[in-house]
Amino acid sequence: MGSAIAARLAEHGCKVLTSLDGRSATTRKRAAASGMVSAGDAEIANADIILSIVPPGEAVALAEHLATLINRSAKKPVIVDCNAVNVETIRTIADVVLSSGAHFVDAAIIGLPPKPGTTGPAFYVSGEAAADVTVLGELGLDLRRIDGPIGAASALKMSYAGINKGLTGLGAAMVLAAVSAGAADALRDELALSAPHIHARLGNALPDMLPKAYRWVAEMREIAGFLGDDHPAALIYEGFARLFEHIAADVEGAGTDAAQLVAFAESCKAKK
Amino acid sequence: MGSAIAARLAEHGCKVLTSLDGRSATTRKRAAASGMVSAGDAEIANADIILSIVPPGEAVALAEHLATLINRSAKKPVIVDCNAVNVETIRTIADVVLSSGAHFVDAAIIGLPPKPGTTGPAFYVSGEAAADVTVLGELGLDLRRIDGPIGAASALKMSYAGINKGLTGLGAAMVLAAVSAGAADALRDELALSAPHIHARLGNALPDMLPKAYRWVAEMREIAGFLGDDHPAALIYEGFARLFEHIAADVEGAGTDAAQLVAFAESCKAKK
Repeated sequence: MGSAIAARLAEHGCKVLTSLDGRSATTRKRAAASGMVSAGDAEIANADIILSIVPPGEAVALAEHLATLINRSAKKPVIVDCNAVNVETIRTIADVVLSSGAHFVDAAIIGLPPKPGTTGPAFYVSGEAAADVTVLGELGLDLRRIDGPIGAASALKMSYAGINKGLTGLGAAMVLAAVSAGAADALRDELALSAPHIHARLGNALPDMLPKAYRWVAEMREIAGFLGDDHPAALIYEGFARLFEHIAADVEGAGTDAAQLVAFAESCKAKK
Repeated sequence: MGSAIAARLAEHGCKVLTSLDGRSATTRKRAAASGMVSAGDAEIANADIILSIVPPGEAVALAEHLATLINRSAKKPVIVDCNAVNVETIRTIADVVLSSGAHFVDAAIIGLPPKPGTTGPAFYVSGEAAADVTVLGELGLDLRRIDGPIGAASALKMSYAGINKGLTGLGAAMVLAAVSAGAADALRDELALSAPHIHARLGNALPDMLPKAYRWVAEMREIAGFLGDDHPAALIYEGFARLFEHIAADVEGAGTDAAQLVAFAESCKAKK
């Protein structure tokens, strides 16, 4: 996602810096191809806007690193956290960033990475400083401002993924159970009749999910955290985390469940 | 559901018996209005086909009661269990029924109760004896035979409900969480844009669910049991059971969550 966003910005005339210290030759090559320029920490801290796009588990550490740099610097940039973290985590990150004197925007990227010929993904921003990054909309991003505090964009990301990826999880769990009870064909036919949009959706979503299942484990736990440990629905997302863990292990191993899900999805498409 | 199915059968010339021992005047009135005839146990045991349509928790006890009656009788009817019970429960019920010499059909009713002018709900049957109840298709039911053993129809019911009611549960959990983080409007708009069918579905499904939430608690636990305690996804459905328990208590009590769900659903419809 990060390099595709960089490429979109660079195409629109934006100078995009990135830190490549200690990164592999492949990463350096990809960064260059995306129009990114290698820069040192001091130069990055001097940028106008800094986008944080990293795996969710690294978001807090990156914010702390940036805050340390900015603390020492006269320039106070706007830091935009675009990561799939829950509302509590984004507030922690906001505190870290604001304490350095930098400005902070909560952002949520919804949709697939930018590709030539598309305008997406949607790039939602919330918090008071969201007004300071409107230039991103002129630089090719599909910028959408949420009239809400820091946390609103992350809550949108969590709740949208909770419905969208959750539905794929429900489909995977129920298709596998139906297969083992000899009811998969009947399930497919009944969905086609009385829930055609879910039928069509599963035809694509189940195979698309398989290679991503390992990444969705942490994302489901973020959603459980978003709800809070005491919330009755938090258990639903812990269940999804375990289901995707199970599926990811199957994809890496015997592939039995993966093959059943692909077969079901293909028969959905054939029945369309 | 029971009285509506009875009315559909009676309209098609079927004589429908029911046991009204110890039932209220209201129940007797409703039974008569649905074309049902009050009958004693011996007469019921002498019927050609017996449909069991009761709350899931009463399904095993009814099967045992019927088996006791049929054991003593020369006539061996076909018992059709139409209840939303899991595959293990349906196999227990089948064992009880078959030990009395009666025949057994696993059935699953999917859709709303019969109404004049509709052909539904779908009435799925599985198991060898399914061939012995084809007459139900001539008596106005939308009979659909699954080419599978006892358990296949129940598995279809469980897996269909697990996707369909599960999606409503995901929507309820995520809408409530989005509301409390100030992201509900953004969630509604993003769903309308990138998942319009889910958007439209939640507009109806959320308010429709509220008065049924208390019944869905047991149904979600049946689905968890269908998956088996050790299955990673069983936790998802235990989570749904707790969520619907929470919502049912809110509906009976303060109604805060219910009001938020209704407001979200109405704003979905207004945005259509």
